[in-house]
Amino acid sequence: MNESRIARVLEAMRRHSLDQIIVTAPASVYYLTGRWTEPMERMLALYLNRDGQRLLFANTLFALEEQDGVELVLHTDSDDPVEGLSRAVRPGALGIDKTWQSKFLIRLCALRPDVRPVLGSAPVDETRMHKDAEEIEALRAASRINDEVVAEAIAAVSASRSELAMTDLTARAYLTRCGARSAEGQLACYGANAADPHHAPSADLPKPGDSIVLDLYNPAPLYWCDMTRTVFFQHAGEKQREVYELVRQANLAGIAAVRPGVPLREVDRAAREVIEKGGYGPYFTHRLGHGIGLECHESPDVSASSGAVAEPGMAFSIEPGIYLPGEFGVRIEDLVLVTETGCEVLNRYPKDLQVVG
Amino acid sequence: MNESRIARVLEAMRRHSLDQIIVTAPASVYYLTGRWTEPMERMLALYLNRDGQRLLFANTLFALEEQDGVELVLHTDSDDPVEGLSRAVRPGALGIDKTWQSKFLIRLCALRPDVRPVLGSAPVDETRMHKDAEEIEALRAASRINDEVVAEAIAAVSASRSELAMTDLTARAYLTRCGARSAEGQLACYGANAADPHHAPSADLPKPGDSIVLDLYNPAPLYWCDMTRTVFFQHAGEKQREVYELVRQANLAGIAAVRPGVPLREVDRAAREVIEKGGYGPYFTHRLGHGIGLECHESPDVSASSGAVAEPGMAFSIEPGIYLPGEFGVRIEDLVLVTETGCEVLNRYPKDLQVVG
Repeated sequence: MNESRIARVLEAMRRHSLDQIIVTAPASVYYLTGRWTEPMERMLALYLNRDGQRLLFANTLFALEEQDGVELVLHTDSDDPVEGLSRAVRPGALGIDKTWQSKFLIRLCALRPDVRPVLGSAPVDETRMHKDAEEIEALRAASRINDEVVAEAIAAVSASRSELAMTDLTARAYLTRCGARSAEGQLACYGANAADPHHAPSADLPKPGDSIVLDLYNPAPLYWCDMTRTVFFQHAGEKQREVYELVRQANLAGIAAVRPGVPLREVDRAAREVIEKGGYGPYFTHRLGHGIGLECHESPDVSASSGAVAEPGMAFSIEPGIYLPGEFGVRIEDLVLVTETGCEVLNRYPKDLQVVG
Repeated sequence: MNESRIARVLEAMRRHSLDQIIVTAPASVYYLTGRWTEPMERMLALYLNRDGQRLLFANTLFALEEQDGVELVLHTDSDDPVEGLSRAVRPGALGIDKTWQSKFLIRLCALRPDVRPVLGSAPVDETRMHKDAEEIEALRAASRINDEVVAEAIAAVSASRSELAMTDLTARAYLTRCGARSAEGQLACYGANAADPHHAPSADLPKPGDSIVLDLYNPAPLYWCDMTRTVFFQHAGEKQREVYELVRQANLAGIAAVRPGVPLREVDRAAREVIEKGGYGPYFTHRLGHGIGLECHESPDVSASSGAVAEPGMAFSIEPGIYLPGEFGVRIEDLVLVTETGCEVLNRYPKDLQVVG
């Protein structure tokens, strides 16, 4: 158990008036225990009580070993996984991790009607949001790798390389450099496909004049990198150049707005305003960014509805985009780390307009 | 909307005394709407009421189009995603899909204290459990591909190919054959690593006498295949041969037990008994198998605690294993499809003991 992190979580529980919480996100359990388990449909739950009790409920299949500072409570595939947990929790409010599967929560409520579930991710998520020196170094190293992978990908754009072949290439580029491969794959979107921010890579090939959006993210190996660059294949039209420049300016405006004390909704605003003033507001269809660390998407949220305020040690993406259905899309994404006076941009790969191939 | 599937789900809702359910698993939403969306941390929820109301709640970012038979209710990243849903649901019991994230359920309960959440996956899961002719053909085709991939992987075992390099090879083998790559990767486990049923591939190389467990699963492209073969690198010792033969006999006993009307816990028992009688009962640490289809793990469960009974059209794995910590592991997995008289084994790659390399 990482005692200093546990202490910060317990302090955050006090602030949030939570006496007991269940931590279930694999990254959060790893953050506190030093062990990474992917439970899939099985149950993994770390119970923390402010009175000092710590219990780790796990399936025997996870092959977890005993460790100091936490009592391991095992169940098998033939047991009701929630039963042990239901005996341990105390009456009243119980903080529940945000992604815990409903099947476990509904079962817990049935076994313990005297327990009142409330959203309880904040103590661990807020603790994870403030990266320590070692985590910052890991994030920098991951983005160094991403600078290389993005460069390799852009150099490899060709008329005969499909979106799928491109993501295969980038997956191998990560594997070679850090021995880890994203479970989610990456995004390579050509032409009109790039007008869908989450388009799944297909067998499509690039056509002259296509925008090529490369959104490359990976645990490298444990902390994530995530960068997007958009280039144009063989030719960039006038509208494409105008849209690209707007997105680039929005990216720069977002980065310029980041400093301690600034609400992240204002960072979203600063970038969004550039695109709105350029007349493309309705085509920037998502939030400006997301926190990053042990997960690709974690706290803080960088959106119009974010309640977070920038503080040193926070890491998040700045990724404005414009998506014109049936035509093309442009997104430019960097990771930033909030410093004492502003922010450090973790990605160094240039973002000047490039026509390639 | 797939009206015949919807009709079966509504009938299952009646059997389960559920007037309203929320379907949120991406595979289930696809099964009913024909559109696959990965919502990640965002909200996607199909509301079904037995009175005929159908609403699909989605983030604008998913870029879903209107379709007949369901009303699309959109929200953006700046909205409370649960608000629209909370206005739609009726008082009383509401069936909740098993993997729905707790953050949404807790919010829904806060907005609508008159709604009583109950586990509500069964109507869709049970409908999905009975594969129709088209789905059966897709499962057969996927396992044909897996026969080839497993053969290619076993032929590629070598002293210089690490576990990670092996999974990289198999991922590419799938990509070549079906244009799809598993988000979860596959498992290649050498020697003592194979004693952990879920060991994550590492840079380790095989050593003479290692058991090599290759658990290869993939959407191919939409319906999953999943097969495990264990081979020995350069040499197989006496204990390894004994354990291998026990696991093989357990696999065969499980398959032989499958026919309509047989409870799946008895199928688990039939295979487990072989291993228990051989003296390795405590080292078979997981259930015998899992249903498979649009997801790698779906209903029915094949375990000692399963309540399911084999019926024609069900597809699931038979995958006994023996795991000796610090020594080695053996698992042999096939997919079976329940027929009118027994079952069809979807994998054809042989399971005789092989020493390779």
